[in-house]
Amino acid sequence: MSELRDDQWFTEVFDSHGSAFSLKISEKLLDVQSPYQHLEVYATETYGNLLVLDGCVMLTDRDNFLYHEMIAHPALFTHQDPKRVVIIGGGDCGTLKEVLRHPGVEHVTQIDIDEEVTKASERFFPALVASNQDPRAELLFADGVKWVDDAPDESIDLLIIDSTDPVGPAEGLFKTDFLKRCHRILKSGGVMVQQSESPLYHSGSIIRELRRDMQEAGFDSVATLPFPQPVYPSGWWSVTLAGKAIDVNAFREQAAASHDLPLEYYSVEAHRGALALPPFMRKAFAAK
Amino acid sequence: MSELRDDQWFTEVFDSHGSAFSLKISEKLLDVQSPYQHLEVYATETYGNLLVLDGCVMLTDRDNFLYHEMIAHPALFTHQDPKRVVIIGGGDCGTLKEVLRHPGVEHVTQIDIDEEVTKASERFFPALVASNQDPRAELLFADGVKWVDDAPDESIDLLIIDSTDPVGPAEGLFKTDFLKRCHRILKSGGVMVQQSESPLYHSGSIIRELRRDMQEAGFDSVATLPFPQPVYPSGWWSVTLAGKAIDVNAFREQAAASHDLPLEYYSVEAHRGALALPPFMRKAFAAK
Repeated sequence: MSELRDDQWFTEVFDSHGSAFSLKISEKLLDVQSPYQHLEVYATETYGNLLVLDGCVMLTDRDNFLYHEMIAHPALFTHQDPKRVVIIGGGDCGTLKEVLRHPGVEHVTQIDIDEEVTKASERFFPALVASNQDPRAELLFADGVKWVDDAPDESIDLLIIDSTDPVGPAEGLFKTDFLKRCHRILKSGGVMVQQSESPLYHSGSIIRELRRDMQEAGFDSVATLPFPQPVYPSGWWSVTLAGKAIDVNAFREQAAASHDLPLEYYSVEAHRGALALPPFMRKAFAAK
Repeated sequence: MSELRDDQWFTEVFDSHGSAFSLKISEKLLDVQSPYQHLEVYATETYGNLLVLDGCVMLTDRDNFLYHEMIAHPALFTHQDPKRVVIIGGGDCGTLKEVLRHPGVEHVTQIDIDEEVTKASERFFPALVASNQDPRAELLFADGVKWVDDAPDESIDLLIIDSTDPVGPAEGLFKTDFLKRCHRILKSGGVMVQQSESPLYHSGSIIRELRRDMQEAGFDSVATLPFPQPVYPSGWWSVTLAGKAIDVNAFREQAAASHDLPLEYYSVEAHRGALALPPFMRKAFAAK
């Protein structure tokens, strides 16, 4: 049993799951209270820089490639020809960077409520903002729910909900009502994707409910894809896709196999493997 | 930043990786010093019982299915007809249980140096020892390296190295010399599989070296399969297979797709997906 001294470790306790994850820190680089949340950035000993929002680990230099690749590429390779992409949240700009790797994408609007997150990313995570000057990128700092309300019917190909957990500022992004509004602004053949928490902790709760809510909101198909994410609760995370007049359990396999994007985790085989789902998740989703 | 009080949490610090994982505990159930290692068992709040050896988390009720299924079934579905199986280590008997699910297996010998581990499993992890009375199972408490030395040439179909980390009692199990001895006792078409640490932490070190050592020891093919494992360092783990006159990058897909074993994680798609390897691992293995 080792003691983790608070001046040497950042610890996130996952109270309801009885587990905690800690990273050894060498320096606190930022501590800001924005109108929306408490931002901290630390230099860690082995994970590069660490971004923390309201006490929750958001990302590190070392392992954010997993989350950012998996929230972007499965959805992009599922849609038949994604041109207009919208990211709700995602202020660190890592998802934006992945989306812009696809040459067919013509325009990406990122709407994060908190400009301080993007400012922190510009200062401390330069790799994530590397594509922010791309002429196809539009960065807005506004309420994503309101932005969706104001968007015209059937105007978007791909909608990415890159939010924090379904508490605090992001709570509204996990409600059926919001999902209905997302469905409205997607074109036929459109896809939405949302980060959907831990396969181990949430398969029988948040993920199952999100999948049902997506179906109730009018989506024709849903697919949950698990992937490893060391710094998130349980070290295992997921995204859930929903399709409007498209089956999100299939994807453009040939394109996913033949691209020359410099990816570290995503591959056509990883996509296929994730779609298959472990039996325990299938069981949890099928339960009443 | 939260304080983890030592009387309420079990924390394992991964010093060289600057990370730590903690489980909230409700009770200490066992504290024994065997001739080989320090055994502890805790009741946790959300992970069921927890087994700790020399301060390292070995398994919990809640998530051991991931490791035990992935060290057993990929290798069993790779070998063309595994009849004689040997497990080195594995004293908790969870791997043994998975192996015995395969009706074609005729005999399994488990050789763990430390009988106290099996005793602890019998008392605190009854699900893991549920198949110990199977007439095909033979439990020995002895030095696995010596057992391998004494075994006849080409007498084994499948050899499973279900060890602790490559320090302390298990150090000798990660040496080329031991791998050569394993190769000797495997029949032609034989497979060995070894737990091989974290894809994130060890792809460019322990895993790459193990793969090279296996090839130097005479194996004709190697394959590393990553899988999630929340309670191990980084929450992501791997096994590495090696084949003697067999390609371990292929497997009996039809059998793996049509079995009726009550598995929670392993599936034919999980096996295929794991074999594909994330690009960053492929790169790490290819590096000089």
